[in-house]
Amino acid sequence: MAERVTALAAGHFPSIELHFHPQCYLAAGHFAGSDAARTAAFLEIANDAAFDALWFGRGGYGSGRIAERALPQLGPAARAKTYLGYSDAGVLLAGLYARGFPGVAHGPMPADINRAGGEAAVLRALSYLADRAADTLEPSVRPSDKVAAFNLMTFSQLIGTPLQPDLAGHVLMLEEVSEYMYRIDRSLFHVTSNPAVRRVAGIRLGRCSAIPANDPDFGRTEVEVVQHWCEMSGIPYLGRADIGHDVDNKIVPFGTFPTA
Amino acid sequence: MAERVTALAAGHFPSIELHFHPQCYLAAGHFAGSDAARTAAFLEIANDAAFDALWFGRGGYGSGRIAERALPQLGPAARAKTYLGYSDAGVLLAGLYARGFPGVAHGPMPADINRAGGEAAVLRALSYLADRAADTLEPSVRPSDKVAAFNLMTFSQLIGTPLQPDLAGHVLMLEEVSEYMYRIDRSLFHVTSNPAVRRVAGIRLGRCSAIPANDPDFGRTEVEVVQHWCEMSGIPYLGRADIGHDVDNKIVPFGTFPTA
Repeated sequence: MAERVTALAAGHFPSIELHFHPQCYLAAGHFAGSDAARTAAFLEIANDAAFDALWFGRGGYGSGRIAERALPQLGPAARAKTYLGYSDAGVLLAGLYARGFPGVAHGPMPADINRAGGEAAVLRALSYLADRAADTLEPSVRPSDKVAAFNLMTFSQLIGTPLQPDLAGHVLMLEEVSEYMYRIDRSLFHVTSNPAVRRVAGIRLGRCSAIPANDPDFGRTEVEVVQHWCEMSGIPYLGRADIGHDVDNKIVPFGTFPTA
Repeated sequence: MAERVTALAAGHFPSIELHFHPQCYLAAGHFAGSDAARTAAFLEIANDAAFDALWFGRGGYGSGRIAERALPQLGPAARAKTYLGYSDAGVLLAGLYARGFPGVAHGPMPADINRAGGEAAVLRALSYLADRAADTLEPSVRPSDKVAAFNLMTFSQLIGTPLQPDLAGHVLMLEEVSEYMYRIDRSLFHVTSNPAVRRVAGIRLGRCSAIPANDPDFGRTEVEVVQHWCEMSGIPYLGRADIGHDVDNKIVPFGTFPTA
């Protein structure tokens, strides 16, 4: 996977030099290395001014295991860096943004190359990293708007923790994958019941894919569900967002639009 | 189910008169009636001083749909009542306890009669409702201790909302069912990262049953997982709790021990 992504980058963005940290190749049960190994790798890249960006390799649960201990060890070089990823990596994106890091973005990861048509997703991420190309961005993102994007369950599981960023005035985009509709409903109950989340400018719903069949049928689509919770919570529902666990996943730079 | 529970109660606790609200027999997609019907039924029983207790019929997701609108409509008669249930009903148990209701308890529900050997669970609940019998209580519960009990995911999904009760100084018991080990780990990351939860006196782990196989194997038992998060968060791990989604589920009265 790393070789394919490296070849793709070399062919299209020769200005980019990719470095896959050896930790990416570790395995420790559910995780790509022990918590200590993953913390050390994260800090090594983040704190090294020679790297312009830290690109999360893939999602899958694990960021929450290292966030609390890793984030306080970030220095000035880490603050100047771009961070790009999604899914479970949202835990660290949230914590970085909560600490005021300006270069946090939600978007494709190297592991997306394993999807059918995944090269497009990887090239989009590379294009953002190299040039901040406007056509990589989620199309509703405007320079004057503050935005953030998360996997719904990932965001739910950091509500009420120090990792939760202040999203007052932000457009909050949420996507989901492989969750029952009743769980999408429950997570939206959770997220929209949080007083701080109620200060967002609005919610946009990304794609909710691979939803297992509810028994009995839930009787509501994901749009109806998010509309329900927006109405209950007084949060404006702003429509769909072009994000999701798929190759069309567009870039959402946290905060206001960064210019190249 | 209602007939079997009613017959069981009549045979063993003739002092108890059970009333199954007609809402229990409704069906609306995933739920036992619309949000409006379930809210009305909850309020009708809770606010009627003729009922000593409100016994949640069963779990399954749905309490979160009605909690925010229902709880502010509870009057003085509701405050004097006993509330008994577990699993998803924990959302309302939490909200009631957060509002200072003194009679909140985690324990078996009528639907437990459908389990093999389920009569024992139902009889335990009836014995608690009728007599506050000491042998119905979770065995670590002491009169001087403040305690509370929840399904882990249910509790996670109300963290950071107005439904979250202040559990400072409480022994917090958590049980889980049908969740992957990585999700048990993630929910414990979430719960133990909440600053208010870090003020509990300690955590006891109930049974974690029907855990689907993790691929790859998670490599840690549920006890190792909770010990990890207790160590990370500085919360004392106090051992196991005799609660779970099973017929042995003991009663945990929230707050300090109630005497008959």
